[in-house]
Amino acid sequence: MASLEPPNIVVRRLPLYLRALNLLAAEGQKITSSKDLAERLGISSAQIRKDLSHFGEFGKQGTGYEIANLSDQLRRILKLDSEWPVILIGAGDLGRALVHHSALQGRGFRIAGVFDNSPNKIGQRWGELVIQDARDLARFVRHEDIQIGIVAVPQEQAQHVVNALIESGITAILSYAPVAISVPAGIRIEYMDPILHLQRMTYYL
Amino acid sequence: MASLEPPNIVVRRLPLYLRALNLLAAEGQKITSSKDLAERLGISSAQIRKDLSHFGEFGKQGTGYEIANLSDQLRRILKLDSEWPVILIGAGDLGRALVHHSALQGRGFRIAGVFDNSPNKIGQRWGELVIQDARDLARFVRHEDIQIGIVAVPQEQAQHVVNALIESGITAILSYAPVAISVPAGIRIEYMDPILHLQRMTYYL
Repeated sequence: MASLEPPNIVVRRLPLYLRALNLLAAEGQKITSSKDLAERLGISSAQIRKDLSHFGEFGKQGTGYEIANLSDQLRRILKLDSEWPVILIGAGDLGRALVHHSALQGRGFRIAGVFDNSPNKIGQRWGELVIQDARDLARFVRHEDIQIGIVAVPQEQAQHVVNALIESGITAILSYAPVAISVPAGIRIEYMDPILHLQRMTYYL
Repeated sequence: MASLEPPNIVVRRLPLYLRALNLLAAEGQKITSSKDLAERLGISSAQIRKDLSHFGEFGKQGTGYEIANLSDQLRRILKLDSEWPVILIGAGDLGRALVHHSALQGRGFRIAGVFDNSPNKIGQRWGELVIQDARDLARFVRHEDIQIGIVAVPQEQAQHVVNALIESGITAILSYAPVAISVPAGIRIEYMDPILHLQRMTYYL
């Protein structure tokens, strides 16, 4: 039964499964099992099977999962079959790192526009992108039909920028600012927070 | 009974609980419940109670958790009562962003040293830090008794840099490079990967 909406916590684990599958494929493996994935991810194999069962039947009892097929299915479920254009707000050091040595390149997302409010930065060229005036944000978002925004501005400006993004029509936001941001219902926000990851390791030191 | 080693997946959720508690405290709340936390985190209240029970008794039946007390306990469990010195490898745009607009400042971690292998960068001053020669890494790590390293180098260099960190005595690594890195048993590695977070939102678009 795949009729009920799967819980958010299940959806959040799918990209972890996809990443593990990509690694296995890169190592030359063709087939994997929930037990194999469980060992790599530190998530129980029962949990993995249960998570996947929300979306259909992917493996055969006793033969495991075909890696290429399961990856394709997960990409389809996560709507990653075509490239998503995103906009970046904030043309500082972090923004520059995102554009120039992009961790996004070739991984399903493409920075379609960069915006800043500093007159010194507006008009500068970063590779194929020209830094645009933040006041032109809404027009660009509507014209290019962008749904995802990345926020790389100082933390004092983060809430204000997120408000402007939402007003322009953005519905999914990835924020690098180390502050909690309030968003209305229906808007998704994720945080890139090194502290969370560091705190997951100190327990073991 | 808190005698068995709690599973890694449970330890990984503790920083999420701590962050939610900090937010509640900032909003002026004194008491919370597993139900309240569950709603904010998208994790079931039964799961939260079970996770916490690995570490002791924190709430009273019917009265919930005292936020300040539970935060303190979580910080103690995660060994966050004193500040951790960390080293940063890679003095590029991302490294500069980490040092100058640090998301780490005042949050339990402090960048104690920055290293690079480019002669143009070595010797440059970044605030109170002077960029050091990567060849002096091992000496610094031993002398300052550093256990945590942050890797902000181009992806082609990431594995090499991680190897050098481990050789110098580092046991916990946070990598910003968008590639999988192999580490021996006993070494912890976490990844800062925007793709994972973006993929957690596209499902809903």
